[in-house]
Amino acid sequence: MSYKNPSGNVIIAQSGGPTVVINRTLVALIRELKKHDCFTGIFGVRHSIPGILKEDFIDVRAQSIETLARVAETPASALGSARHKPTPEDAEQIFRVCEKYGVKYLFLIGGNDSAASADIVNRIAQERQFELRIFHIPKTIDNDLLVTDHSPGFGSAARFVALAFAGNNFDNAALPGVKIDVVMGRHAGYLTAASVLAKTDPADGPHLVYVPEIPVSLQAMVADMDAVYKKYGRCMVAVSEGLIDDTGKLMAEHWIQEQDAHGNKQLSGSNDLGDHLARYYKEHTSVTEKLRVRSDTLGTLQRSFPTVESDTDLAEAALVGEAAVKYSLRGDIDGSVVLHRAGEGSQYAVETSLVKLSDVAKGTKSMPREYMNEEGNYPSAQYIEYARPLIGTLPAFAHFKNVPVPKHA
Amino acid sequence: MSYKNPSGNVIIAQSGGPTVVINRTLVALIRELKKHDCFTGIFGVRHSIPGILKEDFIDVRAQSIETLARVAETPASALGSARHKPTPEDAEQIFRVCEKYGVKYLFLIGGNDSAASADIVNRIAQERQFELRIFHIPKTIDNDLLVTDHSPGFGSAARFVALAFAGNNFDNAALPGVKIDVVMGRHAGYLTAASVLAKTDPADGPHLVYVPEIPVSLQAMVADMDAVYKKYGRCMVAVSEGLIDDTGKLMAEHWIQEQDAHGNKQLSGSNDLGDHLARYYKEHTSVTEKLRVRSDTLGTLQRSFPTVESDTDLAEAALVGEAAVKYSLRGDIDGSVVLHRAGEGSQYAVETSLVKLSDVAKGTKSMPREYMNEEGNYPSAQYIEYARPLIGTLPAFAHFKNVPVPKHA
Repeated sequence: MSYKNPSGNVIIAQSGGPTVVINRTLVALIRELKKHDCFTGIFGVRHSIPGILKEDFIDVRAQSIETLARVAETPASALGSARHKPTPEDAEQIFRVCEKYGVKYLFLIGGNDSAASADIVNRIAQERQFELRIFHIPKTIDNDLLVTDHSPGFGSAARFVALAFAGNNFDNAALPGVKIDVVMGRHAGYLTAASVLAKTDPADGPHLVYVPEIPVSLQAMVADMDAVYKKYGRCMVAVSEGLIDDTGKLMAEHWIQEQDAHGNKQLSGSNDLGDHLARYYKEHTSVTEKLRVRSDTLGTLQRSFPTVESDTDLAEAALVGEAAVKYSLRGDIDGSVVLHRAGEGSQYAVETSLVKLSDVAKGTKSMPREYMNEEGNYPSAQYIEYARPLIGTLPAFAHFKNVPVPKHA
Repeated sequence: MSYKNPSGNVIIAQSGGPTVVINRTLVALIRELKKHDCFTGIFGVRHSIPGILKEDFIDVRAQSIETLARVAETPASALGSARHKPTPEDAEQIFRVCEKYGVKYLFLIGGNDSAASADIVNRIAQERQFELRIFHIPKTIDNDLLVTDHSPGFGSAARFVALAFAGNNFDNAALPGVKIDVVMGRHAGYLTAASVLAKTDPADGPHLVYVPEIPVSLQAMVADMDAVYKKYGRCMVAVSEGLIDDTGKLMAEHWIQEQDAHGNKQLSGSNDLGDHLARYYKEHTSVTEKLRVRSDTLGTLQRSFPTVESDTDLAEAALVGEAAVKYSLRGDIDGSVVLHRAGEGSQYAVETSLVKLSDVAKGTKSMPREYMNEEGNYPSAQYIEYARPLIGTLPAFAHFKNVPVPKHA
């Protein structure tokens, strides 16, 4: 394409699963756009790509400073989200809408699927020599985006998971038993591994962590859990919702298929995995004493619970929004904003760069094998070194020191 | 009994379900005890009454100032908990242990069952003229204790629930659908009703709230939910785990019994209710469009998630611990510490008093009928007036103002 910094209107969209800091990115982007004269109208699209097709825009310039400040503190996608892969016909329709509304810039805040959507529209725009600059700005709690060191949204979700397990650990220490908590992350174990990040003592839970990258048999899990129970008199397990069994099947489907035989086809609620694992453990453990076995599924709170964001994540969520505007001013480019580590030694710092949309669109990232221990049932020191700076400062929890009162005769 | 302020050792125990501020009470109690010479040894008992029987004590005086400060910040019962109703034989054994260890004071931090335990031991002590002063200090997230205006632990759990629903509401607004979240509270709806406390807009969720005090049929729930869905294009529901159906049966048991006929007797996991309600709604709704129906069970996080405590609750948790020591110095009494509202007009303030153990031990409290609306499906203004001061300051969330970009021709 042959233009440079065209003056024109801007469309902003949020896509895919919300995060607790995605509005921080949105508002940083809006504030930065407002500083530059080449961006005239700023249109927020309701519910992403389908909203563009329906021309469902709100006027972002008409929002007060105070509303913007409040939206920045509010979890989930303030513009609304959607999961919709644009067809070539959708792309043509997007161009017609852009032409009609004088739109020259499209900013899409989202994950891998959103990068793929941006890439599809961008390729067709280039073929058609349609004048539209498209930028993808990363977000995802799963942390599975290619190229970027990590994704805005992950640090806060990881902080939530770390604090949730810390709380559940002290609860489990008070009323000992076996506790299985299910964590989001269909294909990547980054978030499940974050369950260990707020541990204050090796005897604290979670004691075992199972991620989708490392298949495990139910038998091996039970054996691991029995060993922990025999050592500590209790056992806390973090399990990814995307856990794979030793036959390569999604663990969550294990029981659904069993139950199909009974005609209960609809029994695929969101909380099944934990309950079934708890039941399986109770039936197969070698522990003979009466056991208290419970499970919780952390659920939507992982991506939406307000007021416990990671400071690092908040700052980086704003940074990628601002960076996208900076790149859009550079000239004839499209792309996806990514984060790189830039600190010297143990010092943590990040820089941004812009990469091709197709580089981010082409797939997702799993957790490297070395982020888990050799047994595949607990995060390694490398994982902790990678993830710890992303979740912010943690409170200093403590147990009492074990100073027994001497037994009286 | 005939003694006054005997000098002697002290046993402290924590009992029942943990809360996120129960250690705040514990540490306030310890700090206050250390100020008075009549309390010599301070023994923390591990895992409540059974720990007394086993003489499993830790030396609380040997804990550093820093450890105490950290324990005060740590969720759940740092001494360990238990659910054990003492038998008359247990009481005799407790007296033997107290005699052997020179114990003259017993402080038990817990809920209604703990008050009942304290009352049992106290009655037998009085019959036997055994010199032991017993104090119950309230905690419970369910807020179902008799006499006290509210219980320490409730405010923070209610704050967690309010923030959880606020976050889930914005998530649900971004990706619209039907969402059913299950809240703790087996017999009292106080905590489920707290789901509305952080709402910023009447159109926000939860739109419907069902509590154990008001039985409801599945048909009525579906009709309520359909009406909300037709109005807002989405629907968020808060349901108590202790919900009762119109036949007087625990709703959670509804499907378990159905499934018993299929031989699946063990399918009674902790997350069933929400999943079954979601499935039932999908099967019975009159909404014809494709619906996204999800459920989450907030689980143990409600009583253990750290760093989001209510300031009011933290202050009152410390207050009841200090008050217990103050009452123990007054002379020949036992009892349970309770909170009363003391503020003038809309000003919120509390005072403590000491009531008979038996007054708190004799049952639990349900939510008054007037704390729910006439239809029985949403908290009333009276509830909000009662509960709002207990959960602390809330963040100011916001939606964008609806300023549409005019449609272009």
